[in-house]
Amino acid sequence: MKLYDFLESGNGYKCRLLLSQLGRPFELVLLDILRGETRTPDFLARNPNGRIPLLELDDGRRLVESGAILLYLAEGTPFLPDDPFARAEVCQWLFFEQYSHEPNIAVARFWRHFQWAERAGDPYWERALAERQAQGRAALEVMETHLQSRDFFVDERYTIADVALYAYTHVADEGGFDLAPHRAVRAWLDRVADQPGHVPITQADFDA
Amino acid sequence: MKLYDFLESGNGYKCRLLLSQLGRPFELVLLDILRGETRTPDFLARNPNGRIPLLELDDGRRLVESGAILLYLAEGTPFLPDDPFARAEVCQWLFFEQYSHEPNIAVARFWRHFQWAERAGDPYWERALAERQAQGRAALEVMETHLQSRDFFVDERYTIADVALYAYTHVADEGGFDLAPHRAVRAWLDRVADQPGHVPITQADFDA
Repeated sequence: MKLYDFLESGNGYKCRLLLSQLGRPFELVLLDILRGETRTPDFLARNPNGRIPLLELDDGRRLVESGAILLYLAEGTPFLPDDPFARAEVCQWLFFEQYSHEPNIAVARFWRHFQWAERAGDPYWERALAERQAQGRAALEVMETHLQSRDFFVDERYTIADVALYAYTHVADEGGFDLAPHRAVRAWLDRVADQPGHVPITQADFDA
Repeated sequence: MKLYDFLESGNGYKCRLLLSQLGRPFELVLLDILRGETRTPDFLARNPNGRIPLLELDDGRRLVESGAILLYLAEGTPFLPDDPFARAEVCQWLFFEQYSHEPNIAVARFWRHFQWAERAGDPYWERALAERQAQGRAALEVMETHLQSRDFFVDERYTIADVALYAYTHVADEGGFDLAPHRAVRAWLDRVADQPGHVPITQADFDA
């Protein structure tokens, strides 16, 4: 399998982390999204939406969207429950991550961390950042409430719901978020980082 | 089952449409999101993220996020393929809808259709709307490209990927989007509307 990816991407990291924990070999094809390498004709032929991560199977079939890649890879493994309702709860958190969490926490991080030189001082982008940060804090509060009585998001065990939410939460400070008040979230981050096979976000070498 | 919902919501409509096509009885509990009825203590106890749709099973278990509700209800039915890769492709389009489509097309519609009196004339909101509309047009272009060689999004048949993408595409004009140039999208909208058990977005009465 090939994973087309950008090392600083939390969406790509979710896939790398799960592949590592599953012990599945893959080739990492790194593209620089900051230099438009996901908007070339060659890459747009692979994904017309121009986004990484993209998983290419050995037979050439391709899959995009980190949540879909996680669900595909986790099927039949301990990272995705068999029980229909527990599976649905995993999906619920994957969609929460992509709708309420990533567009605020990851986008605030992307703007501040990679693009602030070109946005700083523009009142539009200052206000847009503040809006995203306010909504990102609300998403962290939803996580905090949920984790106050649980060790993991679903089924009292580590699943791809935790993988997905860990990716951008553990670098939320780069988006200007302060996790200090979120004690349950911080304890959960530690539990996730302690899982067997855990790798850091910028690890590029994978032995399988 | 109870579905907590807002009739003009495309996210809620996805669930109503699938429930209708599955012939499953449900009670519709309508909340007015414009009057804060999803931010009351009572509703926040059901969903701390304060959003509809919310599916409450007869045993009291609750599920949120339209994509997760669709996957849960469609399991074991013709609306979700059995083949693992085709299932993953369905999920891919569900996540595309929630990340690249809904936040642009549905949000532009929500601002223009329900909240423009309080936003019009503010340069921030005028520019924010223009940004969402540009990204919404890009999402429609991805759909157009995909549908130019296909009748439905996945597996050459009507699945919950079509249900999810139909919901806000068929009312995209209310967000200021012109579907005239998107011939393949328009032909697909007609095919979806022709499916057995189809109901319009504002239908509130369901006999099951």
